[in-house]
Amino acid sequence: MAASILVRRCQVWLCWTPSRLQTGYLREALNMQMSFAAVHQVKKKEAKLLKKQVPHDISRITKRALHATLLCFQEVMLTSERYEVQRLPFAHVSDRDLSFFEHLMPGRVITDVDELKPFNVDWLKTVRGSSKVLLKPRTTEEVSEVLRYCNKRNLAVNPQGGNTGLVGGSVPVFDEIILSTALMNQVISFNTVSGILVCQAGCILESLNQYLEQQDFIMPLDLAAKGSCHIGGNVATNAGGLRLLRYGSLRGTVLGLEAVLADGSILNCLSSLRKDNTGYDLKQLFIGSEGTLGMVTAVSVLCPRKPKAVNLAFLGCPGFSQVLRTFTTCKGMLGEILSAYEFMDNECMELVKRHLNLVNPVAESPFYVLIETSGSNSAHDEEKLSNFLEHVMASNLVADGTLASEDKKIQMLWALRERITEALTCDGYIYKYDISLPVEKLYDLVTDTRARLGRTAKNVVGYGHLGDGNLHLNITAESYSHSLLEAIEPYVYEWTSQYHGSISAEHGLGFKKKHYIHYSKPQEAVLLMQQFKAMLDPKGILNPYKTLPIKAE
Amino acid sequence: MAASILVRRCQVWLCWTPSRLQTGYLREALNMQMSFAAVHQVKKKEAKLLKKQVPHDISRITKRALHATLLCFQEVMLTSERYEVQRLPFAHVSDRDLSFFEHLMPGRVITDVDELKPFNVDWLKTVRGSSKVLLKPRTTEEVSEVLRYCNKRNLAVNPQGGNTGLVGGSVPVFDEIILSTALMNQVISFNTVSGILVCQAGCILESLNQYLEQQDFIMPLDLAAKGSCHIGGNVATNAGGLRLLRYGSLRGTVLGLEAVLADGSILNCLSSLRKDNTGYDLKQLFIGSEGTLGMVTAVSVLCPRKPKAVNLAFLGCPGFSQVLRTFTTCKGMLGEILSAYEFMDNECMELVKRHLNLVNPVAESPFYVLIETSGSNSAHDEEKLSNFLEHVMASNLVADGTLASEDKKIQMLWALRERITEALTCDGYIYKYDISLPVEKLYDLVTDTRARLGRTAKNVVGYGHLGDGNLHLNITAESYSHSLLEAIEPYVYEWTSQYHGSISAEHGLGFKKKHYIHYSKPQEAVLLMQQFKAMLDPKGILNPYKTLPIKAE
Repeated sequence: MAASILVRRCQVWLCWTPSRLQTGYLREALNMQMSFAAVHQVKKKEAKLLKKQVPHDISRITKRALHATLLCFQEVMLTSERYEVQRLPFAHVSDRDLSFFEHLMPGRVITDVDELKPFNVDWLKTVRGSSKVLLKPRTTEEVSEVLRYCNKRNLAVNPQGGNTGLVGGSVPVFDEIILSTALMNQVISFNTVSGILVCQAGCILESLNQYLEQQDFIMPLDLAAKGSCHIGGNVATNAGGLRLLRYGSLRGTVLGLEAVLADGSILNCLSSLRKDNTGYDLKQLFIGSEGTLGMVTAVSVLCPRKPKAVNLAFLGCPGFSQVLRTFTTCKGMLGEILSAYEFMDNECMELVKRHLNLVNPVAESPFYVLIETSGSNSAHDEEKLSNFLEHVMASNLVADGTLASEDKKIQMLWALRERITEALTCDGYIYKYDISLPVEKLYDLVTDTRARLGRTAKNVVGYGHLGDGNLHLNITAESYSHSLLEAIEPYVYEWTSQYHGSISAEHGLGFKKKHYIHYSKPQEAVLLMQQFKAMLDPKGILNPYKTLPIKAE
Repeated sequence: MAASILVRRCQVWLCWTPSRLQTGYLREALNMQMSFAAVHQVKKKEAKLLKKQVPHDISRITKRALHATLLCFQEVMLTSERYEVQRLPFAHVSDRDLSFFEHLMPGRVITDVDELKPFNVDWLKTVRGSSKVLLKPRTTEEVSEVLRYCNKRNLAVNPQGGNTGLVGGSVPVFDEIILSTALMNQVISFNTVSGILVCQAGCILESLNQYLEQQDFIMPLDLAAKGSCHIGGNVATNAGGLRLLRYGSLRGTVLGLEAVLADGSILNCLSSLRKDNTGYDLKQLFIGSEGTLGMVTAVSVLCPRKPKAVNLAFLGCPGFSQVLRTFTTCKGMLGEILSAYEFMDNECMELVKRHLNLVNPVAESPFYVLIETSGSNSAHDEEKLSNFLEHVMASNLVADGTLASEDKKIQMLWALRERITEALTCDGYIYKYDISLPVEKLYDLVTDTRARLGRTAKNVVGYGHLGDGNLHLNITAESYSHSLLEAIEPYVYEWTSQYHGSISAEHGLGFKKKHYIHYSKPQEAVLLMQQFKAMLDPKGILNPYKTLPIKAE
C-alpha cells in the first residue's frame, strides 16, 4: 500500500516539465528551511517584546494586533480629527452608568486608559477613538441588559470582536462604549453527523478550527486574521477569505444566529437546520451589517469534513493573462478538488522578502499564483494536479513552480500570500482597497493606479482571491498625505464603478468607506438600508458613524 | 484509451459483492426497458389529451400542471370557502382598470374565464382562487407600471411563476390580479469565465439548464418541477431541490436580483459579483419571501461547471438506521463528488409502481436511497463509488442495488424518486408536509404519524432529501376530510417543534402554512417580519393572505 503510494507520487513528480520545475522543487527544501528560520527569529523577538508590553487581560488579543503593535510604533491621529467628524448627540458615560455596568458584570468593566488603548485603535493603525469604557459580557442576557440600558440612556455602543477589521468598523470614532465578545467564547454544541457547530460569538476562528479538526471537520472559512478574529465578527462583517471559492460564502454556511437588537430584545434565529423556509430569512440582515443593526451573540455554522488530502502549488506566471488562463484551466481540470486560487504580483513578493525575511521559493516572475486542492483521496488528487501542472507548463502558462503536501510546507507557502498585509504595515501608511471586479479587468486597476500615482506613492501592489474576482489593491507612502488620498479617491471608486464592480468585496464599509456606497449601490437600495437601520435602531446607538451615510450627510 | 476505461469499468463491477448486486445489475437492463416503455405509453396518452384540452396560449404551462390536469379531474373547492377566509378590503378590478392594463400591454391582458382556470388552481388541486384578470408583462418597467397603478388603486396582486408551488402560495385566494412572469423569459447574459448567468424571472429552470449545458455549465439547483417552474419563482420561494447538498442554497448562489416593490419602484441589486460587502444584503429579503415583499423580475446566478462524470446508485436498505449509516459512510468515502443523497420508503415505491407503472429495479426493501456523484474524472469517481459500495455491501448496510452512468438510465432511476409527488396526486387528496429535522429523527415522524392515523389514512409515506435533513411526509385519503386534517395538524407541527425542526424546509409557508410559523420561529422574529412587510408594502397588496399571519389574526 505504502509502496504503491510512493510509486504514484514519483509518477506525479515525473509528470512535471523536468528542468524548470524540478529546479523549483529541489530549491524548495532549502528555501523552506531559510524561510522557517526567518519566521522563527521574528516570532522570538515578538515574544520577548510581548512579555514586556502586553497587559495581562489582553494577552489573547489578535496576533494581527500584536504584529501591528510591534512593527509600527507611531501614535495614531484621532479619527475625529483626521476626518473632521462631528460627534452625534449621544449621552456621555457617567459614574452612575459605570456603577450600573459594574453591578451587572463585576470585574469586567475596563476603564483604565492604558488597558483601553488597543481597543480604541484599529489593527492598521489608521483610525483611533477615545472610548472610556469597555465591557466584557459573558452571556447573551448580559449583552441584552447592556443594550437595553444604553438605548434608554442614549449611550452609543461599539460592538467589538477580535478587532481585526480593515475599514475602521471595529473601533469607536468618539467615546462609544466598547462591547467586547472576548469572554463569549464557548462552544455550545457540535453534531458529528450533520457537521453543525453552534457557538458563542467570541470564539476565535482558529480555535474553532482546531476544535473541529480533532473531530475530522473544519470551519468553512479561513483568513489571515484567524488567530485573532472572532466568529461573531466574521459573521457580522460577512468575512470572505481563502476558502470561499470552495465552501461558498457565510450567507450559505451560517445556518442560524442569535442577535441582540438595539433595544435589548433578543432575536433567537439560532436554527441548526440545513433548510428552513418559514418566513423571511432575518439572519441575513445581520450578516454583513457590521454591528449596526444588532450585536451577533451566537452562531450556527455548517462545517465541512476535514479533507483527507491537501496539496498546494505555488507557481510563477509570466503575465496576468497567463494567470487568468491558468485559472480557467484549473477550474476545468481540478474541478471539485480546487479549494483556493490566489494571486500576488512581484511587488508583493518584494515586500514580504524585504520586511518579513520570507524567501521566494520559485524563479522571479511578474505574478505568482497559489492553487490549493482539498479532496478525499490523495492519489486521485495528486493525479489530477499532476495532469494540470503538466498541461500549464507545456502551454507556457506557468514558468516555474513548487508543490507541497506536508502541513509545514503548506503553511510556509501560504505565509507568502497571507502575510502580505503584515508586510504592508511595515512599508508605511497604507491606503487599502478591497475591490470586486470581473476577473478579466482585475489587474488593470493596479496598472492604471500605478501609472496615475507615479512616484507620489511608495508602492502600488495587487493581490487577492482571484478565484472570487476579489482584488486587494494597496498603496503605501511614508506617511499619511491628504493630497495622495485625493489622487486615489474617488479615482479608484469611479474606475470600479465603471466596470460594475464593488468598492468593498469582503472588508465591508466600516467607517472609511461608508460615503462611497453609492459607487456600488443605487440610491433606492441605500434608502432602503437607511429605513431598515431606522426601524431596528431608531436612536442609532449601534456602531454609529459606520456602514451607511446618515440621511442628513 | 477507450479500452482502458472499459477495463476500469469491469473492475468497478467486480468490486461489488457478487451475487446480490450483479443480480440487481442484470435485472436493471430489463427493468429499464419496461420502465421506459411504461413511461412512453403514459406520455403518449397525455400528449393526445393535451392537444384536445389545452388552449393555445397556455401550451407552455408546467408539465406538473399538465399531469395534474390529466390525472385528477375533480373540481376544486374555492379556498375562501374551504378555509373560511374573509376578503380584505382591496378595490375590485373595474373596466377602467382593464383599459389601463390593455393600453399598457396590448393583447397580454387575459380575462377569459376558461383561460384563467389553470392559473387560479394550484398544481395539487387543493386551493382555488377566482381572479378575473391575468397580466403578462414582458419587461421590468411594465411590472413597475402595473404595481404603481395597483398600489394607488389598492388592487391586490398575486405574482405567479410556473405555478408549481405546493403550499398554495402561487394562486389567488380571492380576485387578486395575477401578474405572470410567463413572457419574461430572456437570458440577459452569460459569462463563460465566471459562470455567472443573468436572466429574467420567467425563464424555465430546465430551459436554463439546457442553455447552460451547451456551454459546459449547469444550474446550481434541480427539482422535479424543473420543466415548468420559473427561476424567479425558485428564487422567490428559495427552492431547495436535489443539488442543494452539493452546490448549497440559493442564498449563496444567487449573486443578485432585481425586484419591483409594491409602490412600483425598481430595486436593482442585479450584481454579477461573487463578493460584495457594500451595505446590507437586501436581495436576501426577497429570496424566500414568496412575492410578499416585492416581485422578482431578474436574477443573477453563479453556475457550476457541468460535471464530466455523473453516476447514480439506487440501493435498497433493510432499515432506516442503515439509511443513516450509509449516508455517513458515503459522506466520508465519496467526499467532494457526492451530489445527492435521497431516500424513499417502500410505500413510495408501491405508489409509483401502482399509479405510474414504474418498475422497482432492485429487490424489495423497506427503504431505498439514491446516491448521485458528480465529478471531473470518471475513472476516479467510479473507483471511489466502487470502494464505497463494496464497503456498504460488506457491512450489510445495503441489501441490493443498481448503478447507472448513462443519461437515459440515470433519468429513469431518478424518475422513481422525482415522480413520487405525481404518483401521490393519483392516490387521492394529499396532506403534504415538508419538514426539516435532525437526520437521526427524520423517519420517526413518519412512523409515529402512521401509527396515530391508523386506517383513517389511505397511505402515509416518507421520502426526501436526507442529505439536507429534509423529509417529505405525505398522507393520502380518498377525499378531503376535515377530521383527518385535525388528526394531523397541529400534531405534525408540534412533533417537529419538539425536535427544533422546521415546519417548512423548502416549500415555504404560502397560504396553507402561514398560521403555523410560530412552531418554527419565535414571536420576536414573526413581529419583525411583519414590520418588514408593513414597511415595504404598507397597503399589503402583494400576495395577500400568504406567508405571514396578519397582526389582527
